[in-house]
Amino acid sequence: AEKIVCKVIGAAKNAKKAVKEDPRRIIHSLKVGLSITLVSLFYYFDFLYEGFGVSAMWAVMTVVLVFEFSVGATFGRGINRGIATLVGGASAVAAHRLASFAGDKECIILGLSVFFIASIATYIRLSPKLKARYDYGMLIFILTFCLITVSGYREDEVIEMAHKRLSTILIGGSVTFFICVFICPNWAGEDFHELIALNIEKLGIFLEGFGHEYFQTTKEKNQENKASLDGYKSVLTSELIEETLVNFAKWEPRHGKFRYRQPWDQYVKIGSLTRECAYRIDSLNGYINSDMQTPVEIRAKIQELCTKMSSECSYALKELSLGIKTMRCTLSADPHILKAKTAAKKLKSSLNIGLWPDTDLIDIIPVATVASLLIEIVSCTANIADSVHE
Amino acid sequence: AEKIVCKVIGAAKNAKKAVKEDPRRIIHSLKVGLSITLVSLFYYFDFLYEGFGVSAMWAVMTVVLVFEFSVGATFGRGINRGIATLVGGASAVAAHRLASFAGDKECIILGLSVFFIASIATYIRLSPKLKARYDYGMLIFILTFCLITVSGYREDEVIEMAHKRLSTILIGGSVTFFICVFICPNWAGEDFHELIALNIEKLGIFLEGFGHEYFQTTKEKNQENKASLDGYKSVLTSELIEETLVNFAKWEPRHGKFRYRQPWDQYVKIGSLTRECAYRIDSLNGYINSDMQTPVEIRAKIQELCTKMSSECSYALKELSLGIKTMRCTLSADPHILKAKTAAKKLKSSLNIGLWPDTDLIDIIPVATVASLLIEIVSCTANIADSVHE
Repeated sequence: AEKIVCKVIGAAKNAKKAVKEDPRRIIHSLKVGLSITLVSLFYYFDFLYEGFGVSAMWAVMTVVLVFEFSVGATFGRGINRGIATLVGGASAVAAHRLASFAGDKECIILGLSVFFIASIATYIRLSPKLKARYDYGMLIFILTFCLITVSGYREDEVIEMAHKRLSTILIGGSVTFFICVFICPNWAGEDFHELIALNIEKLGIFLEGFGHEYFQTTKEKNQENKASLDGYKSVLTSELIEETLVNFAKWEPRHGKFRYRQPWDQYVKIGSLTRECAYRIDSLNGYINSDMQTPVEIRAKIQELCTKMSSECSYALKELSLGIKTMRCTLSADPHILKAKTAAKKLKSSLNIGLWPDTDLIDIIPVATVASLLIEIVSCTANIADSVHE
Repeated sequence: AEKIVCKVIGAAKNAKKAVKEDPRRIIHSLKVGLSITLVSLFYYFDFLYEGFGVSAMWAVMTVVLVFEFSVGATFGRGINRGIATLVGGASAVAAHRLASFAGDKECIILGLSVFFIASIATYIRLSPKLKARYDYGMLIFILTFCLITVSGYREDEVIEMAHKRLSTILIGGSVTFFICVFICPNWAGEDFHELIALNIEKLGIFLEGFGHEYFQTTKEKNQENKASLDGYKSVLTSELIEETLVNFAKWEPRHGKFRYRQPWDQYVKIGSLTRECAYRIDSLNGYINSDMQTPVEIRAKIQELCTKMSSECSYALKELSLGIKTMRCTLSADPHILKAKTAAKKLKSSLNIGLWPDTDLIDIIPVATVASLLIEIVSCTANIADSVHE
């Protein structure tokens, strides 16, 4: 029994931690529960049940299947589902009308139409262009068409059935819509916007620590500092998340601070420039951990300029990130970029005249590579800034 | 009318092209159409209809919702759906029994249980660990539980309903299973296996062309050659596809040439090593197109060894790729890797003694970087080979 008590307490602690970490998930879950319960009232109250009967089931199904985490995703699924049901139902009714002329062969014609429509729609579903935004719609189209065509053969009430299904879906959809939008909404657009800003900030944090980490003379590496440097790694793999979010964000109506037309494509561009910069930073990070550490004296020659470049880029990126977060024009990043560019130019010219006499080339190469990577990062930063200003 | 004819002909041509390019999609679409038509026979034949009535609809739904492109994905969805329906149905029946003791307050208890179960299950759905493999199962659990709990309040036939639903889902599922597995199956495992081999081959193709492209003396770049060099780029972004495929592959039973336990995790490891190598190749590719082309004389100094390394790595990678494809042990790659390693060692020591006297450092850096990238690629290749041998 003690074990069980321990486990329950453990689970409660975990739950508490989860609530603190991401309250949005909890709220989302409660919202879904609330919507389903509201819709199921249709069954419990007799006067509501009279109108729809068993079809009220479709309202519950709509809520369960459409309610997604973000508003954009919910809208996307809802619109897909609505239109697909409409089109699927209409096609099914048309197929019935056509088949009814055939008399005896009605069921053969219906069977053939199910076969061909399902095959063609499945084929369209596989096309990568449509998959991202309309996959769910195609699925629901197939489902509605097949269900109505097939079961309609029995019931002879195709139109009434389609009508009932549509209105129950509308009820389920509007309950979902209201609860999704008016109770603590999760906007995919806001998440996307924050992700872009956060990613730029992460690069800034890396560059802030880089100078100190690479040019330190003591052997003992600071493990804590190390961990803070690894923050940028999530940027390398954020492409998929960004794509998903932007797809959802495009479904969302304007709202709040996003009142005006959001240039989502511009954000995508900033995101991919950020990632390009992150790839360079990844190479740079390789040199911090490299086995073949070059002697401190060699590194010292470029220490000042490199530290300068890295910290100026860091300031610039942080300013840009703040600018995106607050949605203000951020010219405050420009002087930092200018300083970083000047340092890069200086470094280039000093590399030119043989900075390290009497040193083996194999020792110089990694240091020189670090220098040229930093120079590239400066120009990446400038690109990001240009993109943000647009 | 002529326009329409033109369009129809155009569409027909497109369709023909599509069939040639990817016949598997067409076959898959026809398979889905066939399964749905088979299942809908339940409605057309009276003796079958008698047994199930309207519930036969669930069979059609199961086919539409479960039939996925690859066998693994279909199995995953099917198993998820089956178990979730079972668990959801059982919980709903339990909830009903409990509620029936409450007398008047039955509907309040049912409402509360719907609210809590839906909220908790939705919360679990959001956990990233479970999302990849069990998301669909959780969805169906919520759906089944809510539908049976809610509509059962009316029908007083909960158990019979659950039983009918299960048996129709079983019928739909088994039709899907047979058509998916026995008519031209698309195994995710096979696709994954081929993708890994193809990715390694792509790197090999790049390295084959690299030496010629980088060290050529004539200014005019061969555009065709250029295009063949870009093949590796898809490797950079294949992580997501690999993850999806391996998730599906894990659902698949052993079959054909995969009769023995497939070490999928090993494949994932090979895939990520390949991608690491591809990142280096991406940097290398940057130097082919670089603006600041270094003078030919400087490049010429390392031409022989670099070309050697690149072509030996290319042979080795191609051998490895072939080895994976045919699933044979591939020691034939080892001599190539050895040769590449020897060349790398020679290059390292020749870089050591000042290969370019009286040259500006800024001109040397890119060439030296190319050399060190190639050295890294050699060790990447060796890593891939080790991983493949395991």
